[in-house]
Amino acid sequence: MSHPFRLLARRYRRHPFPYRRCYSVRVPGDGGGEGQSFRDIRTVADLKEWQPERRVSDVQVCGWVRSVRKSSSVRFVDITDGSSMRPMQAVIDKSLAADIRPGAAVRLTGVWHSSASKLLSNVESQGDSLARRSPIAGIQTPAGHQPSSNNPGRSSEQASAASLPPSSSSISVQEGGASSTTVTSRGQTQASAMAELQVSQVEILGSSDPHTYPIQNKYQTPESLRAISHLRPRTPLNSTLLRLRSDAMAILTQFFFNEQFQQTHPPIITSSDCEGAGEAFTVKSGAPSEFFRDPKYLTVSSQLHLEALAQALGNVWTLSPTFRAEQSDTSRHLSEFYMLETEMSFVQDMDEVMDLAQKMLASLASGLSQRSAAQELEKHRLDSRDPAERLAFEDLVDIKELQQRWRGLMAPTRWPRVTYTEAIKILEPVAHMFEHKPVWGSGLQSEHEKYLAEKIGYDAASDALLPIFVTQYPRDIKAFYMLQSQSPPPQGQTVDCFDLLVPNLGELAGGSMREYRLAQLEDNMRLHGLEVPTHRKARSNDMGWYLDLRRWGCPPHGGFGLGFDRLLSYLTGVPNVRDVVPFPRHFERCDC
Amino acid sequence: MSHPFRLLARRYRRHPFPYRRCYSVRVPGDGGGEGQSFRDIRTVADLKEWQPERRVSDVQVCGWVRSVRKSSSVRFVDITDGSSMRPMQAVIDKSLAADIRPGAAVRLTGVWHSSASKLLSNVESQGDSLARRSPIAGIQTPAGHQPSSNNPGRSSEQASAASLPPSSSSISVQEGGASSTTVTSRGQTQASAMAELQVSQVEILGSSDPHTYPIQNKYQTPESLRAISHLRPRTPLNSTLLRLRSDAMAILTQFFFNEQFQQTHPPIITSSDCEGAGEAFTVKSGAPSEFFRDPKYLTVSSQLHLEALAQALGNVWTLSPTFRAEQSDTSRHLSEFYMLETEMSFVQDMDEVMDLAQKMLASLASGLSQRSAAQELEKHRLDSRDPAERLAFEDLVDIKELQQRWRGLMAPTRWPRVTYTEAIKILEPVAHMFEHKPVWGSGLQSEHEKYLAEKIGYDAASDALLPIFVTQYPRDIKAFYMLQSQSPPPQGQTVDCFDLLVPNLGELAGGSMREYRLAQLEDNMRLHGLEVPTHRKARSNDMGWYLDLRRWGCPPHGGFGLGFDRLLSYLTGVPNVRDVVPFPRHFERCDC
Repeated sequence: MSHPFRLLARRYRRHPFPYRRCYSVRVPGDGGGEGQSFRDIRTVADLKEWQPERRVSDVQVCGWVRSVRKSSSVRFVDITDGSSMRPMQAVIDKSLAADIRPGAAVRLTGVWHSSASKLLSNVESQGDSLARRSPIAGIQTPAGHQPSSNNPGRSSEQASAASLPPSSSSISVQEGGASSTTVTSRGQTQASAMAELQVSQVEILGSSDPHTYPIQNKYQTPESLRAISHLRPRTPLNSTLLRLRSDAMAILTQFFFNEQFQQTHPPIITSSDCEGAGEAFTVKSGAPSEFFRDPKYLTVSSQLHLEALAQALGNVWTLSPTFRAEQSDTSRHLSEFYMLETEMSFVQDMDEVMDLAQKMLASLASGLSQRSAAQELEKHRLDSRDPAERLAFEDLVDIKELQQRWRGLMAPTRWPRVTYTEAIKILEPVAHMFEHKPVWGSGLQSEHEKYLAEKIGYDAASDALLPIFVTQYPRDIKAFYMLQSQSPPPQGQTVDCFDLLVPNLGELAGGSMREYRLAQLEDNMRLHGLEVPTHRKARSNDMGWYLDLRRWGCPPHGGFGLGFDRLLSYLTGVPNVRDVVPFPRHFERCDC
Repeated sequence: MSHPFRLLARRYRRHPFPYRRCYSVRVPGDGGGEGQSFRDIRTVADLKEWQPERRVSDVQVCGWVRSVRKSSSVRFVDITDGSSMRPMQAVIDKSLAADIRPGAAVRLTGVWHSSASKLLSNVESQGDSLARRSPIAGIQTPAGHQPSSNNPGRSSEQASAASLPPSSSSISVQEGGASSTTVTSRGQTQASAMAELQVSQVEILGSSDPHTYPIQNKYQTPESLRAISHLRPRTPLNSTLLRLRSDAMAILTQFFFNEQFQQTHPPIITSSDCEGAGEAFTVKSGAPSEFFRDPKYLTVSSQLHLEALAQALGNVWTLSPTFRAEQSDTSRHLSEFYMLETEMSFVQDMDEVMDLAQKMLASLASGLSQRSAAQELEKHRLDSRDPAERLAFEDLVDIKELQQRWRGLMAPTRWPRVTYTEAIKILEPVAHMFEHKPVWGSGLQSEHEKYLAEKIGYDAASDALLPIFVTQYPRDIKAFYMLQSQSPPPQGQTVDCFDLLVPNLGELAGGSMREYRLAQLEDNMRLHGLEVPTHRKARSNDMGWYLDLRRWGCPPHGGFGLGFDRLLSYLTGVPNVRDVVPFPRHFERCDC
């Protein structure tokens, strides 16, 4: 068997033409005589991690000015390109820095040097006396300026000034520099890497008037930032949350790819109005007649369509926008949100569905923990000194609880699983604690869910908050498509379903086995007061197509849906789900 | 610096609990005494590739019956689980096969044997005389039944029958079997692997009435299948197209991850009605008042929001649903479709944007060519013998042209780039060929695009169809946000934009540099008859927020958008874009 596509791909990969790409950071060509490839340094985050042995000139950095601190002869400028939570430092001679203002987009060229390159300097050159004399020179700051948290260590003004004017364009060992020392939040003294760009050339790519710029380098409340959602991603915390969101998508895609699940695009515009509950948005065109003949709605869940796809492809998943026209104004609800939904064919045991949910979440947490966005969100909460940064972190869930959440997500044991009936038995003795009495047959209130998650989910041995599965809810309070349990409790009929509960947030995911037998599904629909079409009519809004799935070759199957935004809120400790989506939509608010 | 998340992840990965997962195919435990791990065999596609040295019993396969061929004592059953275009063969004793009907969902248990295990049998056992005597025994078929294309080779009835009744439950070397030979479409004779499941146990998981089942194992026109979009993915071609779609998503995610682009979720419900062109769907809730206070729309493009995100994150991309209420009923238009859009900050040369587009598409084609869906779509067009399969393939673009397209996408050279003005000069001498006269200042008609793509894009040396970039269109026929060219031609003002054209399909992608200067953008808006808000008002539908992006630190930037469904149509040779999406929505049609 020949694979011409594959062969071509192999051949062509050997001869790629040089794609041009202006990364935000450019360092001089490959190797630079040091036997080290510089090509992977493409962003400020990469540059900050780079510790070349010698100073490197002709380094070019594009980014936005986050703050400027003045001294008599130089400006210390914090630069970000969105790749890291904290900026890098550029040192610019006063004469070059006239238009360097907070918010401006700039391109800076100069000499990159880190403490590593300075150590070498110390050996090879004179002028290192400052570093030896004053180990804490690094935390001296220009008079009248707050120390910034953004670089734990700062070169002293004198050292930086000494290295100006700019060096020649070849890599050179220069004088000056200071190793730096900083005091951590625990009060310990430690040496830390210091790195900065000594700038020889400044280009203003997009100017900024700092007096009107809405993103000041000071604390702004989440509420005030929500009013400027088009500028909000420029804050350090919000840009990091968006990078974590991107990481999460990539890791989930990789996870399902490895598990051989097919990623699908179920429809956004659908015929179902959410069983008439009135929570679906309607879609209209400008034309007087119905564009699609019948009224159509924005999807409230992709599950029914995923079932159709799973019956052809086996195992499927999607991460799709979903919509609810609920008028609830809470920190947990959005009118437009992303749902991660999966459906598996040939599954007879709901434990397999719950295992998939746990494996997926554990894999996600594990993957994220190796990426910079999640690392920064933890590390900088521990070492934060900048007042604006600290205040922003104070809006988040306590770091100790956040670490308990992550430990729980990555726990090496199966998460606790209790039936709804058992859960009611746990709640009954403490009924006095609740506003709503726990009664078999009624839904669990959010206060009940919270109690259960904390009571059952906390694992003292590992100090971890394990998510918990509550299974087999009463049939009458759950959806028509769920499979009836084979051994219901004496209290009444139940269905094979689960909710995944976590402390504080409540329901993170919900899943079930689906009723796969036609007659029983039709019975369920009647029980739930739904119309049962006798046979599918083309171009109608009824559920005939969904019943069709049971008519021919419907195996036992099940799946779950998970609120992606809510998950990110849980992972990051951001209390309000509106702050983990770039452009939140909810009742009466849809800016931009 | 400690990374508790990372450390936990490492530690926990060493002690995972055994997640239960019922893959559609199960083979006996790890190694099975043959020193080979079986654990990676999880689907029919995996099983078909598997060539164990000995027969393996206790193999369990879940899947759907695609077809049943009868002989006097056994049934040859084609089984699929959606993981491969062609099914695997199960041989079932007549007495067990009573409810085995096309469309049914089944679980089969039995002995897996391939030609490899048979070769070993030949050495160790008797009964191999058939294989030696009759090398073409494999294409003998039971009397009265068409040879199926699905397994190029078939074991003879005798051989299969000889291996029944089922073997013991341990791995055993059994008698019988035949190597097989098949005739390819080029008329050459070649040996091919033969493998089948000799079934000892049958479970019907979901029955099917073959007389009413709409997905018959025969040719059905694309039009007729579109009327049953909830069942259509069960056909071999459509399930393969959906797998290719899934592969494409994974490969693109990987590509942008490697390129350090952040994946984002721009909003679906937006304030912009597409500059009043009336092609946007309106979103309404059931409530009498406006849910979001002002009228809101389904997004027609994520570009404007991506620009806001790129100004914070650097480089961003999205693969998002996009909507147009166009009443056009063509093979290229959908009302709901997926757009892949990117935006790059700090880009001053549009060549970089075009290079990204080419690199992305080349990477996608190369990645797809190493995945089974794309390989099957090529290979089976060359070796197809089954009439239904051949007829389905005949609906697609000619295989020779398809291969030219893939060679073009993976070409080692930069794709041709011509300006609009040059394109007009190319078209003018052959103006008589066109219905519409090519005139500088008017848009290129689809007939012009087609001519240009074929004329400029065909590379005779490699027999490849290269996509072509047409750049710098006249300002007045392009969008208000595009950057004016610095050196326009004498004919008039142009903008720095490009269309990526391919033969037959026309425009695959479009991009531009964006006007990043406030005053010039306002001028452009007035030129295009758009209202220019003097300053941003909270909660209004105007473009104030978009102008804000130019107020503070807007660097030169650019990006492109690509119709994902149209791209899949181009890659697969499926002429109608409605056949590469699972649930197509277009004027007057929105089933399910």
